[in-house]
Amino acid sequence: MPVDFGHFLDDFEVLSRVGWVEGFGTDRLALGENDIRIRRELIAKLSAIGARIKFDDASNIIAEIGDPSKPAIAIGSHLDSVLGGGKFDGAYGVIAGLEVLRGLRDEVKNHRLMLIDFTNEEGARWIPSLLGSGLTTGVYKDGITFGDALRASGFMGEEPNRLMHDPPRYYLELHIEQGPVLEREGYQIGIPLGIVNIRVLEIKFAGEANQAGPTPMALRRDAVLAMARFIEFIRDYALIRDSNERLRATVGIINVKPGIYNVIPSEVSFTLDIRSPYEDEVNKAVTYVIDVGRAIAEDLGVGFEHRDLFMHGKVEFDREIIRTIEDACKDLGLRYRFMWSWAGHDAQYMARISRVGMIFVPSVNGRSHTKEEFTKNEDLINGLKVLAETVRGLDGHEGREG
Amino acid sequence: MPVDFGHFLDDFEVLSRVGWVEGFGTDRLALGENDIRIRRELIAKLSAIGARIKFDDASNIIAEIGDPSKPAIAIGSHLDSVLGGGKFDGAYGVIAGLEVLRGLRDEVKNHRLMLIDFTNEEGARWIPSLLGSGLTTGVYKDGITFGDALRASGFMGEEPNRLMHDPPRYYLELHIEQGPVLEREGYQIGIPLGIVNIRVLEIKFAGEANQAGPTPMALRRDAVLAMARFIEFIRDYALIRDSNERLRATVGIINVKPGIYNVIPSEVSFTLDIRSPYEDEVNKAVTYVIDVGRAIAEDLGVGFEHRDLFMHGKVEFDREIIRTIEDACKDLGLRYRFMWSWAGHDAQYMARISRVGMIFVPSVNGRSHTKEEFTKNEDLINGLKVLAETVRGLDGHEGREG
Repeated sequence: MPVDFGHFLDDFEVLSRVGWVEGFGTDRLALGENDIRIRRELIAKLSAIGARIKFDDASNIIAEIGDPSKPAIAIGSHLDSVLGGGKFDGAYGVIAGLEVLRGLRDEVKNHRLMLIDFTNEEGARWIPSLLGSGLTTGVYKDGITFGDALRASGFMGEEPNRLMHDPPRYYLELHIEQGPVLEREGYQIGIPLGIVNIRVLEIKFAGEANQAGPTPMALRRDAVLAMARFIEFIRDYALIRDSNERLRATVGIINVKPGIYNVIPSEVSFTLDIRSPYEDEVNKAVTYVIDVGRAIAEDLGVGFEHRDLFMHGKVEFDREIIRTIEDACKDLGLRYRFMWSWAGHDAQYMARISRVGMIFVPSVNGRSHTKEEFTKNEDLINGLKVLAETVRGLDGHEGREG
Repeated sequence: MPVDFGHFLDDFEVLSRVGWVEGFGTDRLALGENDIRIRRELIAKLSAIGARIKFDDASNIIAEIGDPSKPAIAIGSHLDSVLGGGKFDGAYGVIAGLEVLRGLRDEVKNHRLMLIDFTNEEGARWIPSLLGSGLTTGVYKDGITFGDALRASGFMGEEPNRLMHDPPRYYLELHIEQGPVLEREGYQIGIPLGIVNIRVLEIKFAGEANQAGPTPMALRRDAVLAMARFIEFIRDYALIRDSNERLRATVGIINVKPGIYNVIPSEVSFTLDIRSPYEDEVNKAVTYVIDVGRAIAEDLGVGFEHRDLFMHGKVEFDREIIRTIEDACKDLGLRYRFMWSWAGHDAQYMARISRVGMIFVPSVNGRSHTKEEFTKNEDLINGLKVLAETVRGLDGHEGREG
């Protein structure tokens, strides 16, 4: 009963359609109607292969196969989706993990196998994202403010079932890249070294609201002009630093006051998301942001403020797992490259309690969180192959080394 | 019973406080509670000097003194305010007009005098602005969708009372400049030549929503970056053209989609308000906007769209009135300059049915539509003097020329 790629594709076809709306994308918010449906289908399939299933108090699904006394190799991801998202983000990793459990349940000797579906990874129904993995690993002490929804879902379990109380030895997460790099460079597999530093600032320029007509251009204190100049400077800076994948910066939210067509804006605030694998790059970027912001503010006679909204320090993945994934790629003859995960994943919290690694497969055109999100079947299968080989490898290491 | 400046200042002090909230500014939306209060106080003062008062079907207050068979010299403005506005915008012109009616009612021989308070000039309660003057001059045929509020206010009158059916010969509007030019250049009076061309566009850049982390800087199609570059180009262009008061351009409203901190924006739309006394300047600016927008869009691989939201053609004021205002300034020894009104006023619609002129007084720091709006008493009085002298002059012309 080896890993069966056709069977996986069938499962993926059926499960990833749950909540799919043609022309809109996936409607499968955490613990909403469609998330509950896909969870039930997953549980049915897990039960059919003899998995033991439990829930923790974050409604994470934790399924196990094998001797409970042996350490666990866990595979996980999430079945929830942003509204209008694609079919692959999260679901791919869970469904591939299901196939690994089925295919390798008799072969893996030194570990039990575990599959985890984390609740609300996307943060699209509840803020923050990574809520399920954060709760089960002890990042959040309690604070389950969405308890009613959990109870209503039927997946609310017990606190003692949190993974932190019986951590898997290894945690693997197979995921689409969600970026264009692998495809553009012709790689089949990406091996993330970890998850980058993420620091999100709020920047504010305060000008003076005056009437658009009667105020000459030269006498304006225009907050929006300050923002425009700032965005260009920051983008040019990040563009250069990112030429060797060192820094990315994004303005995603903009609020303008008073927001009237014929009034020069008195205030504009916006988010600046800064990411880098290197902490000193982030710090240098923030210093640059402050220097440039102040200089522009002085030049245009406006005020400048900045504050941290939040930050996540870098998470480095486990070297043994990275080596094992690399070995699997070599054995399978797949073109791979090392890279960083520039987005957060449940793996970052699992790294608090387990040895963690991730496997990326190419995203066509780098699209994600959209109905255009797509990964080819051959890439899905390559990822599954690497995942299965990695599980075999880690289990074998245990045999050799344990 | 001449024009009494102390009496005017007393009236202004009392009336302009209606709806004033310390620390917030003026709360006097059209036909709201405080607008109704100030209207009643105005009517009481008008009644006390023997004015005949009527309302038209836009709830404009139309007060008259003198022989109904003679042509009218009308003075008007508005008592409504934006939320959190100042004490001077609109109210100054109405209260000064009240004093002119009282002071000159026996002196003016060849005309009757008229005072008008236009409803919803600001457009802060109902869109569009200049609603009352638009209805009474026939710009809008009917379409009074706020009829319930009119009826509830007690100021709803008859359609035959619209000014278009019995237009004043002259319409004068005394107003604060709402810009910084007079103060900075040391003038006491501004004489507008008319109201500039106003053309408001909506600009849209369409990029591609991708995740902020996994998408390298060089591979982005970032709508916000396109906007930033565009705003800088347009500002530089307008700054040069406006060095001799030819062109102003303002981005006042910005909408970003999807508006998530960690997603590269797929779309940004924003308003671009373009103003100039010269139609060809507006047309050249729009051509430049389109050229620059397309070039940026091509450079960044995003889409570019533009559409007109609305436009108002230039209104030129009456030469006889302008000359009469100038003569008044000379007689009074006041430093004056000709200029354009870069903002809309009820005068622009009154120009459809009457000979129209305006008088501007300095705004401290050019502030307006804010609680910081301020004009010194001596400037308020200078404006009132010029208004009264202009009424005398126009009435005298009639005597000479009529």
